[in-house]
Order: sequence, then structure tokens, then C-alpha cells
Amino acid sequence: MSTIHIRVKGMSCGHCASSIEGGLMKLEGVMRANVDLAGKEVTVDYEEGVIHVETLSRKIKDLGYEIVSP
Amino acid sequence: MSTIHIRVKGMSCGHCASSIEGGLMKLEGVMRANVDLAGKEVTVDYEEGVIHVETLSRKIKDLGYEIVSP
Repeated sequence: MSTIHIRVKGMSCGHCASSIEGGLMKLEGVMRANVDLAGKEVTVDYEEGVIHVETLSRKIKDLGYEIVSP
Repeated sequence: MSTIHIRVKGMSCGHCASSIEGGLMKLEGVMRANVDLAGKEVTVDYEEGVIHVETLSRKIKDLGYEIVSP
């Protein structure tokens, strides 16, 4: 299992957090998704070989948020 | 039909707007609910005698927001 911290712009409230966490959790290979609103960061535990980091970023973008890094 | 403008604190994004508009529209006597995020205001068209203004305010509070006025 790997963990990635993704810096995200535009997460403003608990609804945003739920939307991103729920959206990521639906992806195969994602074991945990946690939004830190204050830290503007999403932490995701995922299975390497099952899902790529790019897929995580794309999902967050598709939900309407901007990726700062990576 | 009457229209009321309610000043609300804590509406930060489109999800908040949807939550408030959807919650108000479910109430009997509410014909239209519109959130102006920038103006921090909710405009509601409602039928007097069917629903009271206090019920509108209470609903917004129950959804987790703070009423500024009235």
C-alpha cells in the first residue's frame, strides 16, 4: 500500500470534502481518502499496480477542483 | 406569494447552495429558493399562510448555517 498527499485548491467546506472523499473511495484500488480542509490537502491510501496516481488526480479535477501538486 | 431575502453566514460553495436550495424546496409552501453565494443571501418565494418565515430560517439553521437577518 502507498500513501500520497495531494495539494488541492478550491475545497471550501464539508460538502467539498465529502464529494472528494466519496469520489475517490469509489475508485478500485483506493483504500482510504481523507480531506484536510485547513491544510488544503487530500491524503489517499491506494494499491500500487491497481490504480495510478494520475487517476486520483484526474478524479479530483473531474469533481471540479484544482490540483496544486504533485 | 411573498418573497424574503435571508442573510446567511457560512455558505462557501456550490454544494452549500445546492444543500440549502434543495432543503428549502422540500418544504410545503416554498415555490422558489435561490442562493447568492457572493451576496451571502438566500431569496425565497413562499406562500403566506402555508409556511412561516421562521420555518425557513429554522431549516437553514438545521442544515448547518447561521442566519444573520432577519
